[in-house]
Amino acid sequence: MEKLHLTLRIRLAKEDIFFGPGVVTLLTLTKEFESLNGAAKEMNLSYTKAYKMIKVAEKALGFKLLDRKIGGVGGGGSSLTPECVEFLEQYIAFDKEINSISNELFNKYFKNYL
Amino acid sequence: MEKLHLTLRIRLAKEDIFFGPGVVTLLTLTKEFESLNGAAKEMNLSYTKAYKMIKVAEKALGFKLLDRKIGGVGGGGSSLTPECVEFLEQYIAFDKEINSISNELFNKYFKNYL
Repeated sequence: MEKLHLTLRIRLAKEDIFFGPGVVTLLTLTKEFESLNGAAKEMNLSYTKAYKMIKVAEKALGFKLLDRKIGGVGGGGSSLTPECVEFLEQYIAFDKEINSISNELFNKYFKNYL
Repeated sequence: MEKLHLTLRIRLAKEDIFFGPGVVTLLTLTKEFESLNGAAKEMNLSYTKAYKMIKVAEKALGFKLLDRKIGGVGGGGSSLTPECVEFLEQYIAFDKEINSISNELFNKYFKNYL
């Protein structure tokens, strides 16, 4: 039997939600593989879907997340823009801090129910 | 154009999610109307669905949330148990505090993007 716990869903939105764990993973893997296509494959996402996630986030944020490297050995690839690297770092730190504080609060408020 | 903002979904879970804004509203309205049926109607929920939400939460929490008043003028009704009143107060305070702190953190982390 699982214990009582908190589930938290954190997203950034403008008109619509555009940033959360999916895009974070996609960007993190794109950085690792230097390829959006490689990242999409790793996540079992179609390239079209992955590309759309990036475009939607870029539009909401107002800056580019990925630089395309055209041609060269391996046929190009993608790297994170400096603005993307900074934003992603901020987001990951933010997400971590909310989760940590929320779990502390949860343990404080619900200690009699655990 | 809407500004960049945080969306937070807070839920309590055991094996499955069983407590969030839906049950909170249902309980709050049940208290107000002294009737689960009245609360369900106000929320455009079937009584069956409302009753199930309460039963699922009661099972996960291990205590009763509602007392049925059988018969009498108006044909009975429901009131919150003392345990329910206390839990609901805790939950509402917890939810408020997480939201407040999260929005502060959001403004701190994303001040350059607002």
